[in-house]
Amino acid sequence: MLYLDENRPRKIASRELATSLQLNAVMIRNILSVLHKQGYIEGSVGKNGGYQLLRNLDEINVGELYDLTIPPTISYARFITGDSKGTQATDDTDISANISQTLTDLFTLADEDYRKFYHQFTMTDLKEDLHGHGYFRRLVNGQND
Amino acid sequence: MLYLDENRPRKIASRELATSLQLNAVMIRNILSVLHKQGYIEGSVGKNGGYQLLRNLDEINVGELYDLTIPPTISYARFITGDSKGTQATDDTDISANISQTLTDLFTLADEDYRKFYHQFTMTDLKEDLHGHGYFRRLVNGQND
Repeated sequence: MLYLDENRPRKIASRELATSLQLNAVMIRNILSVLHKQGYIEGSVGKNGGYQLLRNLDEINVGELYDLTIPPTISYARFITGDSKGTQATDDTDISANISQTLTDLFTLADEDYRKFYHQFTMTDLKEDLHGHGYFRRLVNGQND
Repeated sequence: MLYLDENRPRKIASRELATSLQLNAVMIRNILSVLHKQGYIEGSVGKNGGYQLLRNLDEINVGELYDLTIPPTISYARFITGDSKGTQATDDTDISANISQTLTDLFTLADEDYRKFYHQFTMTDLKEDLHGHGYFRRLVNGQND
């Protein structure tokens, strides 16, 4: 996305992206396919083809990209342990019957929090850090002061 | 830990933990070994052996347990892509040369934030949620109001 942005309004072929960024061509094509489907880029394959970014960098949220890559439904893995069916009801098995639900809830909340972290930033922030490492850290540390 | 706490001051054998909590005996022994090494429990194996919790639940931080399980040095995986050696210096390869550092920094900060989430809680909170699911969610939502 940063490369497409820097080369506006030129159309960029996936091959050029792979070569210039020294990334695997198949990985690049897969990423482009997802971004195209999600409306971040427009473009076409073949001769005279190429891709263009449809949004400004400050309109592209890093958290949205994270959610695209790792959907919440995947990372909210249920924590299964103990007597997860809750078939026993004595005091001894109280922990066993309820620990799965408690840990699943805790992990789910932690994952929601983790996503919120990424949602603080846009691709403009990423570009900023790329041109001056330490930008992200200063931003986060500033919040905590 | 919750089971050891509930059964104070009785010494609990690893076999009883495995049976009562319906957990794998080898996993239980490995966990006990780590907790013993870290000073959370005292105890001995063999006949008349067993384990006791050395701290109160409110002295056991959930984040510390998370750090024990997944040390920061493991999760701060470096993100290697593009020209991570930075051998080229044209405008085109600026992204390629710097993206690894930027993403590694972002992921590291996200991981630190993730750990902070768990460090908010002690085992007393975990017990609270176990006896009334929804406690964690109310606690976290209350912070965001």
